[in-house]
Amino acid sequence: MIGRMLRFSIFGESHGKCVGVIIEGCPPGIKIDVKKIKAELERRKGIERLSTQRREKDEPIILSGVFNSFTTGAPIVVTVENKDVDSSYYEKIKDTPRPGHSDYTAKIKYFGFNDYRGGGFFSGRLTAGIVIAGYFAKEILAKAGVEVKAYIKSIGKVKARNLSVEEIFNSKNSFCPDEENFQKMIKEIEKAKKNGDSVGGIIEVIASSVPPGLGGPFDEDLEGDLAKAFFAIPAVKGVEFGLGFKIAELRGSEANDSFIIEDGEVKTKTNNAGGILGGISNGMPIVARIAFKPTPSIYKPQKTVDLEKMEEREIKLEGRFDPCIVPKALPVVEAMMALVLADHLLRWLSWKGFMNLGEE
Amino acid sequence: MIGRMLRFSIFGESHGKCVGVIIEGCPPGIKIDVKKIKAELERRKGIERLSTQRREKDEPIILSGVFNSFTTGAPIVVTVENKDVDSSYYEKIKDTPRPGHSDYTAKIKYFGFNDYRGGGFFSGRLTAGIVIAGYFAKEILAKAGVEVKAYIKSIGKVKARNLSVEEIFNSKNSFCPDEENFQKMIKEIEKAKKNGDSVGGIIEVIASSVPPGLGGPFDEDLEGDLAKAFFAIPAVKGVEFGLGFKIAELRGSEANDSFIIEDGEVKTKTNNAGGILGGISNGMPIVARIAFKPTPSIYKPQKTVDLEKMEEREIKLEGRFDPCIVPKALPVVEAMMALVLADHLLRWLSWKGFMNLGEE
Amino acid sequence: MIGRMLRFSIFGESHGKCVGVIIEGCPPGIKIDVKKIKAELERRKGIERLSTQRREKDEPIILSGVFNSFTTGAPIVVTVENKDVDSSYYEKIKDTPRPGHSDYTAKIKYFGFNDYRGGGFFSGRLTAGIVIAGYFAKEILAKAGVEVKAYIKSIGKVKARNLSVEEIFNSKNSFCPDEENFQKMIKEIEKAKKNGDSVGGIIEVIASSVPPGLGGPFDEDLEGDLAKAFFAIPAVKGVEFGLGFKIAELRGSEANDSFIIEDGEVKTKTNNAGGILGGISNGMPIVARIAFKPTPSIYKPQKTVDLEKMEEREIKLEGRFDPCIVPKALPVVEAMMALVLADHLLRWLSWKGFMNLGEE
Amino acid sequence: MIGRMLRFSIFGESHGKCVGVIIEGCPPGIKIDVKKIKAELERRKGIERLSTQRREKDEPIILSGVFNSFTTGAPIVVTVENKDVDSSYYEKIKDTPRPGHSDYTAKIKYFGFNDYRGGGFFSGRLTAGIVIAGYFAKEILAKAGVEVKAYIKSIGKVKARNLSVEEIFNSKNSFCPDEENFQKMIKEIEKAKKNGDSVGGIIEVIASSVPPGLGGPFDEDLEGDLAKAFFAIPAVKGVEFGLGFKIAELRGSEANDSFIIEDGEVKTKTNNAGGILGGISNGMPIVARIAFKPTPSIYKPQKTVDLEKMEEREIKLEGRFDPCIVPKALPVVEAMMALVLADHLLRWLSWKGFMNLGEE
Repeated sequence: MIGRMLRFSIFGESHGKCVGVIIEGCPPGIKIDVKKIKAELERRKGIERLSTQRREKDEPIILSGVFNSFTTGAPIVVTVENKDVDSSYYEKIKDTPRPGHSDYTAKIKYFGFNDYRGGGFFSGRLTAGIVIAGYFAKEILAKAGVEVKAYIKSIGKVKARNLSVEEIFNSKNSFCPDEENFQKMIKEIEKAKKNGDSVGGIIEVIASSVPPGLGGPFDEDLEGDLAKAFFAIPAVKGVEFGLGFKIAELRGSEANDSFIIEDGEVKTKTNNAGGILGGISNGMPIVARIAFKPTPSIYKPQKTVDLEKMEEREIKLEGRFDPCIVPKALPVVEAMMALVLADHLLRWLSWKGFMNLGEE
Repeated sequence: MIGRMLRFSIFGESHGKCVGVIIEGCPPGIKIDVKKIKAELERRKGIERLSTQRREKDEPIILSGVFNSFTTGAPIVVTVENKDVDSSYYEKIKDTPRPGHSDYTAKIKYFGFNDYRGGGFFSGRLTAGIVIAGYFAKEILAKAGVEVKAYIKSIGKVKARNLSVEEIFNSKNSFCPDEENFQKMIKEIEKAKKNGDSVGGIIEVIASSVPPGLGGPFDEDLEGDLAKAFFAIPAVKGVEFGLGFKIAELRGSEANDSFIIEDGEVKTKTNNAGGILGGISNGMPIVARIAFKPTPSIYKPQKTVDLEKMEEREIKLEGRFDPCIVPKALPVVEAMMALVLADHLLRWLSWKGFMNLGEE
Repeated sequence: MIGRMLRFSIFGESHGKCVGVIIEGCPPGIKIDVKKIKAELERRKGIERLSTQRREKDEPIILSGVFNSFTTGAPIVVTVENKDVDSSYYEKIKDTPRPGHSDYTAKIKYFGFNDYRGGGFFSGRLTAGIVIAGYFAKEILAKAGVEVKAYIKSIGKVKARNLSVEEIFNSKNSFCPDEENFQKMIKEIEKAKKNGDSVGGIIEVIASSVPPGLGGPFDEDLEGDLAKAFFAIPAVKGVEFGLGFKIAELRGSEANDSFIIEDGEVKTKTNNAGGILGGISNGMPIVARIAFKPTPSIYKPQKTVDLEKMEEREIKLEGRFDPCIVPKALPVVEAMMALVLADHLLRWLSWKGFMNLGEE
Repeated sequence: MIGRMLRFSIFGESHGKCVGVIIEGCPPGIKIDVKKIKAELERRKGIERLSTQRREKDEPIILSGVFNSFTTGAPIVVTVENKDVDSSYYEKIKDTPRPGHSDYTAKIKYFGFNDYRGGGFFSGRLTAGIVIAGYFAKEILAKAGVEVKAYIKSIGKVKARNLSVEEIFNSKNSFCPDEENFQKMIKEIEKAKKNGDSVGGIIEVIASSVPPGLGGPFDEDLEGDLAKAFFAIPAVKGVEFGLGFKIAELRGSEANDSFIIEDGEVKTKTNNAGGILGGISNGMPIVARIAFKPTPSIYKPQKTVDLEKMEEREIKLEGRFDPCIVPKALPVVEAMMALVLADHLLRWLSWKGFMNLGEE
């Protein structure tokens, strides 16, 4: 479970019956539109012409927690069935862990009992559950006027230009608001694909209109909770907020955001802090960047070991691999940010309600 | 509280009676040496000649959980008293939030009731509790042969060379194993100081001899739990593992770590993953880097707002500020890594014990 | 979620698609026999000739966490579909809360958005998920030699005689080891049924061969965790351990259990404490009694209010009601005890493993 | 930690430096009156002339979380020092566990490292921390108009008459509103005392003006959370709500509370459910009864074993023992109820705030 007031957990396996999610603590009365959930799941398929993974129709099946199209307040469970899975290949390679995958560590942790077919519980397919939970979180946030948007910041060494929050939110390109560099990113992916290789990238995610006061110090730190959520996405190796690692190179006079008054509200002139000070939202857009490693599945031959015979050997993977998972991860990253923010919004509403007690 | 089997929480305020920590779930029978706790707290003072902060003697007072010099298994509480605090200055500036500090967001979150003196609960002084908890965690890990070491990777734009894990663990310089660049780092800090400014930096932390199998997917992800712990340290703006953000620029064939056999054990040839695959330790050293922003307190005049009058104004901070908190953060970062790893070690021992049930 | 190392949550609604359970932290390598799960679910149907509730075939569908008939260590989700539900009646009475039911409080808590059909998430049908989770917990406990058995202690004013733990575990009557009084209990239920009424009762549950050392003080208290689990079963109004409420009438010299040595092990002569001292198991059988109120659904006319018109009125319920839920609750009570004990067994194995570290 | 939004944990040992409590999630802005905390601690001393335990002055020391007499929202830590403790006796009996105490189970659980002096962490003295936390919880509840009151329902076989909630709340006798039977209870305690024995009893606790809607099903069940909190009090062996165990003897038509309208609000005619339906408060007074076993420390000789020599022997305890802990437990029981209700009030305010979002 991740979260305190809004909590969720994913389940399922890549080649099992289904993948899914359980959401607890979701307030009642939220209007649910299954078409929108499907649309979010569609986004998980990435850039169509680049994506070669299995194209099963992802139909969300709501098992509980929604009644007459509204959330009831009871636990919500939604699943997506797995179809057309062929696991024969994974039987063949189950003793030769694929480099960059969790095959080896899963085998150790689960004493060999893990479902190794298609990565089992570690498969990227499990992110379907995250995206579904994210839909509910986004609807919670919508009531408070908060919006979340993720886009591709870089693919390999190709970077998107720095754009304003408005440009990013208003862009019609759902993958990257910098159209020019987006075309270069696509080429970068195609190049990797042609070489039987894969490529990594960075996603930037922004939450706008977040009220100040969400989060807290120590175990309530918004950055910490967001980072934990982002690292729960497979292939993430780095998370930063605002200027992130860049800020370590600066002087305090360059890094500090001056406070100003804008339309009668306290804002900061710059947003180097990425909207979070002392673990608490400051009313500016929350900005995070998440680094994804290249898809570990590649066609190039790789070195591994046979865990049964305990000898080194070469492995050449077969199947359909995605040369880059970054485009598909956009709705997953958005979902994670929405889930953490919605949880903290609900915590914040509790204290706000308490302060107002007796003053109604 | 952070943690599941080993859990801890910090408390106290910069100008209150004390700061401290509560640790729950610490196994009994661990020999406690108060001198070692003091030595860890001493490290929190950083590089002596550069550090200008208050020099109070930090005496750890064990209130509970230790008996006859051994942990009892009951909750451990340790405090460090605050001495010689002068809060008059903070009364003066309580309505003009210091840029880069939590003054503004704390005021919002706590509806104006937060202890604003010296940053209150948000003060770097609270890290004393983390360091104390870290001592207990390190003793837990020591029993499993795990060691944790942090060093300064960069100050401003000055970076330490890449060294081997052995070089890093064997270095006599407790701040940075790259002596040459360490001298440059010191100069960088002195330069910032002379300008009434401050400077940020990056810490790298390594855990060696971590058994494979710690951690897990989703909410048990070792990267996620470590990141949450690191972000709970004030001034952290980025966390990455292994190659981190750099890995996003690579091809899969470059990023994947080949599996090899070494001394009869499965290892990886490179360690781009930083010792963690699928959220689970793989037996290689766990390597993380944490980006710290420059100390927000600087002598240069800054722009802020008067929250009472709701008008912009200038603020010129007075007092003794540290031009760089990175050297002092080393034991804090080590503590956080030790705490998370000890928690996951205890979880792992549970399943291991279960697998062995009936086979004794 | 209930539990720390072994955690579970139920979901579903009485008239929704299904009911189910998610189990997290279940160790890998446990052999799963679906027939045994079905058998446990069958027990939820109670005494056949007395039970009039819907007789749908409860087929457990394992959605995740089991592979090749063994638990994998990943989250386990199991559902049971709902069939043949007719919700029309509940539409009619949705504004007139049934006395003794959660209709009114659910409506308040969920702001009217709760699924009111058949009690929704509050239905006794949700206990199917608990029973399923209990199966997994029992298999965990079996590896440590722990067994759990519940039986009917009383129905209305008819009480079973006090029997020895051996007699209780060896009885062939799966409802009550005191055959004579069991027949009287059945008559008591039949009498209530004939009057269009219902009757309550008490279940006693015993865990044998529990190793000493499970549990702890305060938030680890075995009695507290068991009580929380038992109260999560609908209709429970009281929980007691050992002599329970009776012990409040005694002198210390009567209540204290003398320590003795038996077969080289420390035992107590009596078991007034019900196997738990200071919140920790003492190696004696753990004995708890749980009081169930009479089924709130009865055919006799009752007074209620129309929440729309805010006026009092009479309600006469229609449908098939169980005159007594106690017989059906036996596997639910066993499941709850098994789940809590398995969780604490896993916690205990962690510390035990730690104490043995380095001594292997 | 117990609780979700309002969380607390106790620490300390009977013969250590102090006992204390940490409270997290307490909202800011609550006016704190140390005199009131002291008054609550005074109540822990019971009926003066009957109580023979150590009479140290319990001075609460607030270490954190309170500033200018108001809670800040940061973690609150309060300690009470231990004075005049003589541990020599406990050294003598450390291998001969006292019957009815946690000596034996603590030794097993903590592998012999527990602080055995005066019961260590298991001592009734630890309830000081609970009472202190309860003070904060009561102040939270006061803002919502909720009041909590506990009184002695029985001592040994002497029972207080059933009185109305008004009579109970308005009684000037702070121990028992039934003056006549209270005098008999005192005699019962004196009789036990004269015989070198002790006696148990039952406490009833009532919360009035609780808004409907607090709590929930399964892991949010108000009865479950209250029971877990009550069982965390040493010597508790049973917890029941409303009619409790008695309800198991009734017919549904007798047990169900009819809904009525009173002053325009939905109430129930009777309160057999003790204010909780489906785990959720229904707006009626919440009524619980808690069974306390007799003080295990008695002067009469008892049978125990020598754990070192593994042989049976007699033990005759020395020191000052309380012949009955029930009177002293009143503020502890009130504190636990207040803490759980305040936690659930804060959870409920979150959803309430969410429902009102956008409607302000």
